[in-house]
Amino acid sequence: MATTTGGKLVYRLEEGSASMSQLLGGKGAGVSEMVRIGIPVPPGFVITTEACLKYYELGRKFPDGLWDSIVQSMHHLEAESGKEFGGKDNPLIVSVRSGAPISMPGMMDTVLNLGTNDVTAQGMAKLMGDERPALDAYRRFIQGFANIVLGIEKDKFESLLDQAKEKRGLKFDYELQADALQELIANFQSVVKEIAGHPVPQDPWDQLRDAVQAVFSSWNNPRATTYRQYYGISHDMGTACVVMGMVFGNLGPDSGTGVMFTRNPATGENALYGDFLVNAQGEDVVAGIRNTQSIFSLQQDAPDLYRQLEEKARSLEGHYREVQDIEFTVESGKLFILQTRTAKRTAASAVKIAVDLAREGVITQEEGIGRVVPDEIAQVLLPRFDVEAKAKALEDDTRLAQGLGASPGAATGAAAMDPNTAVAMAERGQKVILVRPETSPDDVHGIIKAQGVLTSRGGMTSHAAVVTRGLGKPCVVGCEELHVDLEARTATANGTIIKEGDFISVDGATGEVFIGSVATFSPNPAELTELNTLLGWADEVRTLKVWANADTPEQAKEARAYGAEGIGLCRTEHMFFAEERLPHIQRLLTVGTEASRLLREVEQLTATLEKAPATELERLNTLLNEAKTTLVSSEVVKAFNEELTKLEAFQTEDFYGILLAMEGLPVVIRLLDAPLHEFLPRYVDLVKEVAVLEATGASGDELEEKKRIRDVVEELIEINPMMGHRGCRVGVTMPEIYEMQVRAIVSAAAQLTKEGHAVHPEIMIPVVSHVNELHFLHDRLERVAETTRVSFNVDLSHKFGTMIEVPRAALTAGEIASVAQFFSFGSNDLTQMTFAYSRDDAEVKFLREYVEREVLPVDPFTTLDIKGVGRLMQIAVEEGRAANPGLEIGICGEHGGDPKSVAFCHSLGLNYVSASPFRVPVARLAAAQSALGQLKLAE
Amino acid sequence: MATTTGGKLVYRLEEGSASMSQLLGGKGAGVSEMVRIGIPVPPGFVITTEACLKYYELGRKFPDGLWDSIVQSMHHLEAESGKEFGGKDNPLIVSVRSGAPISMPGMMDTVLNLGTNDVTAQGMAKLMGDERPALDAYRRFIQGFANIVLGIEKDKFESLLDQAKEKRGLKFDYELQADALQELIANFQSVVKEIAGHPVPQDPWDQLRDAVQAVFSSWNNPRATTYRQYYGISHDMGTACVVMGMVFGNLGPDSGTGVMFTRNPATGENALYGDFLVNAQGEDVVAGIRNTQSIFSLQQDAPDLYRQLEEKARSLEGHYREVQDIEFTVESGKLFILQTRTAKRTAASAVKIAVDLAREGVITQEEGIGRVVPDEIAQVLLPRFDVEAKAKALEDDTRLAQGLGASPGAATGAAAMDPNTAVAMAERGQKVILVRPETSPDDVHGIIKAQGVLTSRGGMTSHAAVVTRGLGKPCVVGCEELHVDLEARTATANGTIIKEGDFISVDGATGEVFIGSVATFSPNPAELTELNTLLGWADEVRTLKVWANADTPEQAKEARAYGAEGIGLCRTEHMFFAEERLPHIQRLLTVGTEASRLLREVEQLTATLEKAPATELERLNTLLNEAKTTLVSSEVVKAFNEELTKLEAFQTEDFYGILLAMEGLPVVIRLLDAPLHEFLPRYVDLVKEVAVLEATGASGDELEEKKRIRDVVEELIEINPMMGHRGCRVGVTMPEIYEMQVRAIVSAAAQLTKEGHAVHPEIMIPVVSHVNELHFLHDRLERVAETTRVSFNVDLSHKFGTMIEVPRAALTAGEIASVAQFFSFGSNDLTQMTFAYSRDDAEVKFLREYVEREVLPVDPFTTLDIKGVGRLMQIAVEEGRAANPGLEIGICGEHGGDPKSVAFCHSLGLNYVSASPFRVPVARLAAAQSALGQLKLAE
Repeated sequence: MATTTGGKLVYRLEEGSASMSQLLGGKGAGVSEMVRIGIPVPPGFVITTEACLKYYELGRKFPDGLWDSIVQSMHHLEAESGKEFGGKDNPLIVSVRSGAPISMPGMMDTVLNLGTNDVTAQGMAKLMGDERPALDAYRRFIQGFANIVLGIEKDKFESLLDQAKEKRGLKFDYELQADALQELIANFQSVVKEIAGHPVPQDPWDQLRDAVQAVFSSWNNPRATTYRQYYGISHDMGTACVVMGMVFGNLGPDSGTGVMFTRNPATGENALYGDFLVNAQGEDVVAGIRNTQSIFSLQQDAPDLYRQLEEKARSLEGHYREVQDIEFTVESGKLFILQTRTAKRTAASAVKIAVDLAREGVITQEEGIGRVVPDEIAQVLLPRFDVEAKAKALEDDTRLAQGLGASPGAATGAAAMDPNTAVAMAERGQKVILVRPETSPDDVHGIIKAQGVLTSRGGMTSHAAVVTRGLGKPCVVGCEELHVDLEARTATANGTIIKEGDFISVDGATGEVFIGSVATFSPNPAELTELNTLLGWADEVRTLKVWANADTPEQAKEARAYGAEGIGLCRTEHMFFAEERLPHIQRLLTVGTEASRLLREVEQLTATLEKAPATELERLNTLLNEAKTTLVSSEVVKAFNEELTKLEAFQTEDFYGILLAMEGLPVVIRLLDAPLHEFLPRYVDLVKEVAVLEATGASGDELEEKKRIRDVVEELIEINPMMGHRGCRVGVTMPEIYEMQVRAIVSAAAQLTKEGHAVHPEIMIPVVSHVNELHFLHDRLERVAETTRVSFNVDLSHKFGTMIEVPRAALTAGEIASVAQFFSFGSNDLTQMTFAYSRDDAEVKFLREYVEREVLPVDPFTTLDIKGVGRLMQIAVEEGRAANPGLEIGICGEHGGDPKSVAFCHSLGLNYVSASPFRVPVARLAAAQSALGQLKLAE
Repeated sequence: MATTTGGKLVYRLEEGSASMSQLLGGKGAGVSEMVRIGIPVPPGFVITTEACLKYYELGRKFPDGLWDSIVQSMHHLEAESGKEFGGKDNPLIVSVRSGAPISMPGMMDTVLNLGTNDVTAQGMAKLMGDERPALDAYRRFIQGFANIVLGIEKDKFESLLDQAKEKRGLKFDYELQADALQELIANFQSVVKEIAGHPVPQDPWDQLRDAVQAVFSSWNNPRATTYRQYYGISHDMGTACVVMGMVFGNLGPDSGTGVMFTRNPATGENALYGDFLVNAQGEDVVAGIRNTQSIFSLQQDAPDLYRQLEEKARSLEGHYREVQDIEFTVESGKLFILQTRTAKRTAASAVKIAVDLAREGVITQEEGIGRVVPDEIAQVLLPRFDVEAKAKALEDDTRLAQGLGASPGAATGAAAMDPNTAVAMAERGQKVILVRPETSPDDVHGIIKAQGVLTSRGGMTSHAAVVTRGLGKPCVVGCEELHVDLEARTATANGTIIKEGDFISVDGATGEVFIGSVATFSPNPAELTELNTLLGWADEVRTLKVWANADTPEQAKEARAYGAEGIGLCRTEHMFFAEERLPHIQRLLTVGTEASRLLREVEQLTATLEKAPATELERLNTLLNEAKTTLVSSEVVKAFNEELTKLEAFQTEDFYGILLAMEGLPVVIRLLDAPLHEFLPRYVDLVKEVAVLEATGASGDELEEKKRIRDVVEELIEINPMMGHRGCRVGVTMPEIYEMQVRAIVSAAAQLTKEGHAVHPEIMIPVVSHVNELHFLHDRLERVAETTRVSFNVDLSHKFGTMIEVPRAALTAGEIASVAQFFSFGSNDLTQMTFAYSRDDAEVKFLREYVEREVLPVDPFTTLDIKGVGRLMQIAVEEGRAANPGLEIGICGEHGGDPKSVAFCHSLGLNYVSASPFRVPVARLAAAQSALGQLKLAE
């Protein structure tokens, strides 16, 4: 509802201020504010929203006194500007604009060049020293007035305009000369008369009255109504109507028009930046008929104007306490500011400007923190396409295809269609992009050597996506337009064929793929002084710790350099994917089921024996001895143990490196999580190979071995591997693997302790859904840990905790916290289970469509879903802490690097978020903004 | 803690009662109770738990006066029995048994035949007229006493026993004659002396004192302590010690021993039932040396004894108000009841007995309801193997393999290795079992014609399992021992080869597979008078409605016959699997993605146009017209619409039938739920076929067509289909399918209404995770429904609701209930998501192991997990009802037929449970027991 103001329906700009937007609309209040602080704006006045509401109350009639006030204000305007409304020598031309209290861009109407008629047009022409621009303004006015006030379709005029150009063999509107425009004006008026019954009125007062009514009416046009309904904006506010004198930059060499930024929007440099066009109107800039000159050049060419501009720029920036983007016009030597608004800027300049403004005392440090959108920090840090190189690529139309941006950053290199070729090419010193239908563990050595990865299949959690994100390498997945033909060694998209060795470029943030090499650029974080200053300020205010997800010592070092205060997720399975290790884990798995069954049998018999009634003892003892004999002589058990020993050596080395890199800080190591078949060749490939061998009459060892592997893989594949035999389930059914990992962790930590390093390992169990899983593993693993520690004879402690990534774990957090010393939300999986979305499938099949059509407000894998996933997290935090007040709680899903999700984690009172190394700075800033209440929660 | 009783440490049986188990232990109180109600039991007394506790307090010493009381009680026993403890003519022989207040079977110790020594053994021999049994009792006593009192390992004696038999070439213990036993007794005593330093004492009083101490000590033996820890039983209760005279059934022709049931445990017939062996001890029955005679025959052979037995049987049954299983011995014409307990019985007899007891007034109707375990009702109704036929099969060792019982019931038939063969064989009148590695929609026509299904792969939610459960056909899946060779037309398990056409038999309840034909037996529900009586009583008391899951009119009729009060789940996708329909849905899907994309484009442009600013209208209009033109001429859209029309006709017919069958009752129809690739051939098969064709140099149309299908399927397959593009997600991305289904539902209902039938369709949306999905579909589908209804010009209403099967739906139930008129818990999927268990994978890979090792207390797919899944359900019920008080809430997962889960649903206040038709009676009984508080919740 509009405020009641005791009947005053028209305000001069001098009477308003920024705080009066309810009454004067956003635009009216904004211009008034400029006047208030002494900025020269064209003279004008505002008809209030209240006038608009009364207009509707009276059944679309002006309330008493309104017209009189308008006329009076117009006279004031004439006096102020020294111009005459409808005058033939120096006519006052005005704009009549709508302006609601809440911005509704493009929804309501505006009439420009009002006051133009046959007489004043000639006056304008004289002033401008040229008939063409004056008549063009007149032509535009008729068109606009007819459309907005009289409701005549634009087509009518556009077709006349086209005919006029055609007749004269012209291409652009501005090429029409005075005679043509005269003819057009006459034709326009005939059309108006034909449709509306009368031409556009010559009397400027008639024009004004009609235009104000049209602006009022536009408040309730269908577009505006729908818009308000959609965005939940009240229908009761009404629109104000701003009438301002139009100023002309084309009245001679001492006139002109321009746009300036108070600081450089690309670099943040504190100097005016922008363009100026002498003796021209804004539309001339758009038409591109003449080249602009830089604002900077005015320092020499028009020092007085430059001084004025500088002064107004400082004044506006100081007033709004933010860098401004300012439109201005100089009319016969007089400067008018037409509009000022917060300037859009690049990420790098946003950081510099925030730090500079704070240092200059314009804003506080805390405000400086709030001035940078956290995601922009990632942009500052990532390798990216050189702006000009990318613009050129787009201009040259070398975009090949569009996929899902799975791991951000840009890269360029020669296409390699398999990992061995990639390695060979890389070893010859070539930069390589690995191009595959999809990747598997067999590709990891190729991924490591490649600059980036491109796959035609797979989603945001596909193998390629996960591995590259871990490695911080650019990756585009799910590029469905692309067909990779491994036999022909080509990748084809939209008719373009890329041969192996051809250069391509990928942008892992946008998912774009280009043909050829697009230059990239990589900033050095240490050199980003302003960024480091800003993050230093952020660190002072935030309460949430920021840890990082890192799987290797290199990544850990990188994370530390980015400011990580711990490792929240070290994924051990990625360690198994390395080329020299994969055969061992594969052999382990092919014997594991059988070996573990035998080992379990002995264990179970031993346990049964302990509880057995006396009468059963003998029988059980016999069985136990038999089982033990089988065990000792079993080849599979021997192989199983051999591979475990080898893997333990590898893992000990891994953990030694990462714990050393994070000396003094906690490192959360997650035990094996991945479904087992991920370590093995693809089932469908094996089936195909066997079938082909058989069809071509092959026999003998090769076929038999392939069949054997196919059968092993067949036993391990699952229908829904995400919800299958993985994580702690493998830990329970095949405990030897987790025991090996714990031995490796504790050995590495104990060795480091002996060497005088302070290390803080935390052992994390994945995919827990029932407290008993944790009890079972806690008992076994803590026994192994203690034995190992004692064998090193050192003082060493570690934490034992669990992922909370299964809904049931969150729902029974109280029970689970009785065994766990820490929780880490695996929010990727928790989101998958809570929504029943398989991320790999959902992203490709329906999730994009859901977000586009607003079925979902946001992709829940990007930003935490508060109502569902967040509720489970809240239950887990509350009930976990109630059961175990010292419980350490963090999050290690990708949400840990998403600012809105960080804000939610802050609100839940988590101890830390853990993000990819390069998103650690993003999280640091987001955590600070959360602590300062600057970052709003989603939905 | 034991009750304090003012120092009385020994109770005669006459002094005790059933209520004194805390003091006298369970056994002591039970025997006392029999004495109290006039049942002749051997004389005896009880040393209290308090005596045991004092014994421990005093550091394992008898408290003052205890021994005196024991001696006094022994003398009383002598007087009562007319026997002398240690006497040489008519010696008193006793048992000394442990007996704690809470039953701990087999955990503590008991000494039998106490009082035997060189002298009394001879007295016994004289009484028995045979030295062998007397000496055998002596031999056993020494063995037991040595083991229990002196802690000597049993092995020592067993090896001597083995030597004794070996020396004489004997096989069984009972074949050892008196001389051999004498020698054995001497050897036993030597061993005892060697180890313990003295032989087993000859003085019976020494024997007694030592035995009582041993019984007390056994309270704290490691087995008992572990057991109590495990079951959470207090360590402070102590054990009582029961001393009773032993009676002998082998003292001559007027002695004997037997077991009787007060009613027939197989049929429930109200007549004594059991076996009797004249002049024999209990162990003779076990040894199987002589044939027993039926109790029934005593009516003629020993009418007096029979009369006594009958009287005691009535008395005990009347007292315990339950059918009894009674052990008794006749010593020299005198009847002693040794033990009575509630009789185990078959399901059928349990029903009859409960109804009879209630009718006889022994128990109330409500108690009668509580006397039958609900699951037993399913056993009564299902076809099952004839008991004798199965026993013979087991005896003949014809069990072929063991799988997962996926759909209960037993079936026998000739093995058919593919569906077409199955159909052909069935059409020749043969009974067929379809044997496959796993099944797919292509097999459905074969499944329909088969008696049962056996697959070597797949779990409890595999295609075969789901389809057969729906059809009520026996099915065994995941039979991993079985290798099905489709080329050789054989199935091999454990070395046995079944050829196509060979008979096999499957039990879908136990998962057993037999070679050959095992006779089956199918009860007719209408003829089960007692069952129907009991269920009638149940219906009177229950508050929870019982609906059924049924997909066809036949199933609906069956469900109604079983007492279903509605259809809680009619799965529409199963309708698509029928042979004549599958090609249509397949064609629909192969064009669907493309067609729907075009249709969506037009829709989206239309929507954008409505909201667009005036300046955009023209451009958008052009785009829209172009899109419409493309649409009209599109072949895929044409094909899409054609198939939709055909499927609509099929579906209308389906719904007509099922709504008619359920006239007057609600029918919840779930719109398409299954992942789309389920309707298509298997991807791996297609890849193989293409590869083989290519490898063998094929080319041309066949190859191209195969490749095309492979590519279509490749686009539809998913990594985790359970969490992929299914349910309402397809409804949103391809709304035409759901619209077609709603048209079919409303058309069928409208037609029926026109014909004068009252029908109550409810439209259910599956896999909802966000309220917006429901909003989107509600808007579209209600529009379609209304248009359809209007076109029939009838008055018809339906409900619109949703499955709650995704955790997020439960967590946001308040929002969802604002759009839904009903909730139906899809507890199968909800369990999958809450635990992150893919049922198909989990059952095979780790769930059995979890349950066996008690990591999980129960399979959560069988019985609802209250703490996790149940908590989500509770949130949904509370917040759903708060938002929409009229919300109808049911459950349609398989838990709807599981009694403990029914109890939980009752406690949550659901409106109904929906179960498979044949489990409707189970649910009716369970619902009644829940209402009566007779059914306890799990965990």
